[in-house]
Amino acid sequence: MKKTLMAMGLLALAGSAAAQSQVQIFGVVDMAITRLSGSGDTRFGLSTGGANISRLGFRGTEDLGGGLKAGFWLEAGMDPDVGGGKGTGGGLTFNRRSTVSLMGNFGEVRLGRDDSATFLSTLIFDPFLTNGVGQTMAFTMLGIPGVATAAGGAPIQISNAISYFLPKEMGGFYGQLQFAPGERASGPQQGKYAGTRLGYQKGALNVALATGKLWGDQPVNDLKASNVGASYDLGVVKPMLLWATEKRGDLKVTAIQLGAVMPMGASEFKASIGHYDTAHSNADWNKLGLGYGYNFSKRTQAYVNVGYVKNKSGANKSIGVQGLAAPGTTLGGSSNGIDLGVRHFF
Amino acid sequence: MKKTLMAMGLLALAGSAAAQSQVQIFGVVDMAITRLSGSGDTRFGLSTGGANISRLGFRGTEDLGGGLKAGFWLEAGMDPDVGGGKGTGGGLTFNRRSTVSLMGNFGEVRLGRDDSATFLSTLIFDPFLTNGVGQTMAFTMLGIPGVATAAGGAPIQISNAISYFLPKEMGGFYGQLQFAPGERASGPQQGKYAGTRLGYQKGALNVALATGKLWGDQPVNDLKASNVGASYDLGVVKPMLLWATEKRGDLKVTAIQLGAVMPMGASEFKASIGHYDTAHSNADWNKLGLGYGYNFSKRTQAYVNVGYVKNKSGANKSIGVQGLAAPGTTLGGSSNGIDLGVRHFF
Amino acid sequence: MKKTLMAMGLLALAGSAAAQSQVQIFGVVDMAITRLSGSGDTRFGLSTGGANISRLGFRGTEDLGGGLKAGFWLEAGMDPDVGGGKGTGGGLTFNRRSTVSLMGNFGEVRLGRDDSATFLSTLIFDPFLTNGVGQTMAFTMLGIPGVATAAGGAPIQISNAISYFLPKEMGGFYGQLQFAPGERASGPQQGKYAGTRLGYQKGALNVALATGKLWGDQPVNDLKASNVGASYDLGVVKPMLLWATEKRGDLKVTAIQLGAVMPMGASEFKASIGHYDTAHSNADWNKLGLGYGYNFSKRTQAYVNVGYVKNKSGANKSIGVQGLAAPGTTLGGSSNGIDLGVRHFF
Repeated sequence: MKKTLMAMGLLALAGSAAAQSQVQIFGVVDMAITRLSGSGDTRFGLSTGGANISRLGFRGTEDLGGGLKAGFWLEAGMDPDVGGGKGTGGGLTFNRRSTVSLMGNFGEVRLGRDDSATFLSTLIFDPFLTNGVGQTMAFTMLGIPGVATAAGGAPIQISNAISYFLPKEMGGFYGQLQFAPGERASGPQQGKYAGTRLGYQKGALNVALATGKLWGDQPVNDLKASNVGASYDLGVVKPMLLWATEKRGDLKVTAIQLGAVMPMGASEFKASIGHYDTAHSNADWNKLGLGYGYNFSKRTQAYVNVGYVKNKSGANKSIGVQGLAAPGTTLGGSSNGIDLGVRHFF
Repeated sequence: MKKTLMAMGLLALAGSAAAQSQVQIFGVVDMAITRLSGSGDTRFGLSTGGANISRLGFRGTEDLGGGLKAGFWLEAGMDPDVGGGKGTGGGLTFNRRSTVSLMGNFGEVRLGRDDSATFLSTLIFDPFLTNGVGQTMAFTMLGIPGVATAAGGAPIQISNAISYFLPKEMGGFYGQLQFAPGERASGPQQGKYAGTRLGYQKGALNVALATGKLWGDQPVNDLKASNVGASYDLGVVKPMLLWATEKRGDLKVTAIQLGAVMPMGASEFKASIGHYDTAHSNADWNKLGLGYGYNFSKRTQAYVNVGYVKNKSGANKSIGVQGLAAPGTTLGGSSNGIDLGVRHFF
Repeated sequence: MKKTLMAMGLLALAGSAAAQSQVQIFGVVDMAITRLSGSGDTRFGLSTGGANISRLGFRGTEDLGGGLKAGFWLEAGMDPDVGGGKGTGGGLTFNRRSTVSLMGNFGEVRLGRDDSATFLSTLIFDPFLTNGVGQTMAFTMLGIPGVATAAGGAPIQISNAISYFLPKEMGGFYGQLQFAPGERASGPQQGKYAGTRLGYQKGALNVALATGKLWGDQPVNDLKASNVGASYDLGVVKPMLLWATEKRGDLKVTAIQLGAVMPMGASEFKASIGHYDTAHSNADWNKLGLGYGYNFSKRTQAYVNVGYVKNKSGANKSIGVQGLAAPGTTLGGSSNGIDLGVRHFF
């Protein structure tokens, strides 16, 4: 043990590991030629993440014996259309996930920045996985869809998170508890988050509920988000249902979306229709998404998606994607978008 | 297929790939002890990229069958002398190249940030590969040589690019078409770029032409760049010729450079002499570059380069490198530089 | 050779290496649930680097034959609690080390950003390796402990460094000379650094001396740092001694710290007590650190550390860690901290 610790001391200096682990490098590069149009103006350019968010990551697990495992996961979002990362200065950051975990029969304890419990279901039960012109707008309704750090919206990822996940064998049940301190010395704990998610997946059925709260700079600005999702895989088609609500002060928006994914040989078709209702207001809107993907392989897909947003008189929502500014839309106006792209997993 | 799509859904969540691909990690660390002197002042310090730009990259290709391939390429420039990346906040970004490609007998369609069509030839037909104190100044004459994001100069890399490359078997011909939208809602499409490049390489001969246009904030600020390069490998020596011009409004600078690379055992010698002519003006200058490299291996070289700039009465150009500020040079003055460094490919 | 050079030219274009080297990916993800308390206020949250600084790196060496080797090392610090890197804009940068080296019987010549000669001993002779709530405060006493780019303190890492290291076989002696130019055209060479370190390690004994100077914006702001460390490994326990001083103008702080590391099966215990004396002033303080680590494996450790700072009437030092703001402490007040975390090497 003495030698082990001496070795560890040296390791600490060298910043390395005695037994070089198998670090997995993984990621997605996904870009699309995209046209976004609103009742105000039109944008044409290259967007990113039309089918899956572009990213680069490093991860690995270590078997500690006795059913215990350790793992790490570092995953950086990126905007390959401009070569940029997601730091405020454009540099690469592990903004999507940067965690260390201990896993065992008891489940998983995970520390670090991670997807919020309330975001995950909106992704899983959206045929477009919250990507591209067809994506659901149910995951950050009080912010701006398509922007990861939406000001005022529900959190997509949460920093400083302490999470517990149920073990994998629970008769189909899965879930998590997530808590992130505000890390403030006094006063309102702005940025603090508490969320939970419970699901059940067995056979063709998958259903999940999630709820969470994000503390604001004052109690009236606390944000509460909840959602319910369900899918049933019939083989020829997999219908999906997503209900989600976000509330802050007097402002409350509720989404209901029906979706479907239909595989057919190397092709897959996607469709969704969503209604977004702002309480006590006519700031409502509807969104339609349609998509077609051709799988060259498990890793590489060419796709085309279309999206259409129709606002009621109090709303001016636009189609939003990563890497191309959203077009202007007037109150009561409409917006549409099309992207034609390639998604490559590595 | 249903299972495939289910797996893909899971992949999307995990941000990963079913069949872990062989991601290649590659790069260059190149640093040099450098002295730059101008008629105004002198700088001494550590520079980077004296022989090859320092970089870190990740890339891979996937065989899709039927002659079709997919590929990705993520390459970040860096300043190892200070540990920094190239984002505005100093963080690592894939500023050099971040692309996804589909390749086949038809050629290659490539999306994302990439070298501009007009930059490439100035690199290939410069003995110093646009690096270090001896580098050509023909690649961004209206900007500041040695600075990647030269304000006002021709683009080195272009964001949002949509490119088509000719297939590899074209009897020696190669080339590309490149277009990058301005992504603006209205008005002048500042940042929009269109370029093309056509070359012929057979036996000892390599020759290429390129031309491109970068849209400005108003038509008078549009920038046009064109160049012609040729080299002929005689074995004992490889002479090179580079002609390049950049024009914006009434401002036009034209470069003509003669260069040569001479291998000799483990050694290689480099030389170039260039004349830079500003139209209707005496803002002209000449540059001389001399270099010696000793190849310890294919990957590792020690090198020493010298450069000398002599300005005519209307110019005050200085020797510029990465990682050390250019010295001040007075109108009509001269500037010289020397770097002694190590370049290591990995 | 001609073909070799042609290949190298292509390599330069491709930014790659003919013989793909074995690039090692390595790093640490280390996070802890942490509570810091001062006489002023209290912070609770997730910190990083409680046992070892979180990092991600890429490195490799190449055998050049004849006893000669080349190597590169790129190592980025990171804050996984928030997913961020260490660039000013939050992006990943190789701030901890980004170097290229030539190594042989003569020793090692290393260029680039690296640990400063004066920092290294404070890490090696601190049981807590300058990490977490128990860490020594001897490495940047005129700055703010726990902050890598401490304003006014001794340098932890140095940019633009040119270093020479003694060869490995010197009868137990090791050491380095390090010089970093200020890279300024004229006037005081702010940021210039010169340092040296000499040590002797044989059997159970390890002892080292280091001294260095960091140039300021004017001579009165030059900073001089010196330290001496020693450890003797008795097997059941390894006692350590660290003496360090930093001086700038009339300000001088001297630290003396006693520490010990005690391995016991899979466990390890750590303790340190340090006294910090400000010359001609009652701005003195003491710090106590206690730690326990349980090694699941060589790579994965769960740990708990506590730290306590007691100020004399002229000082208001606080416990500081990475990723959680230091609590406020009043003059003459005290500060304490506890972290409970997981450290995973990869």
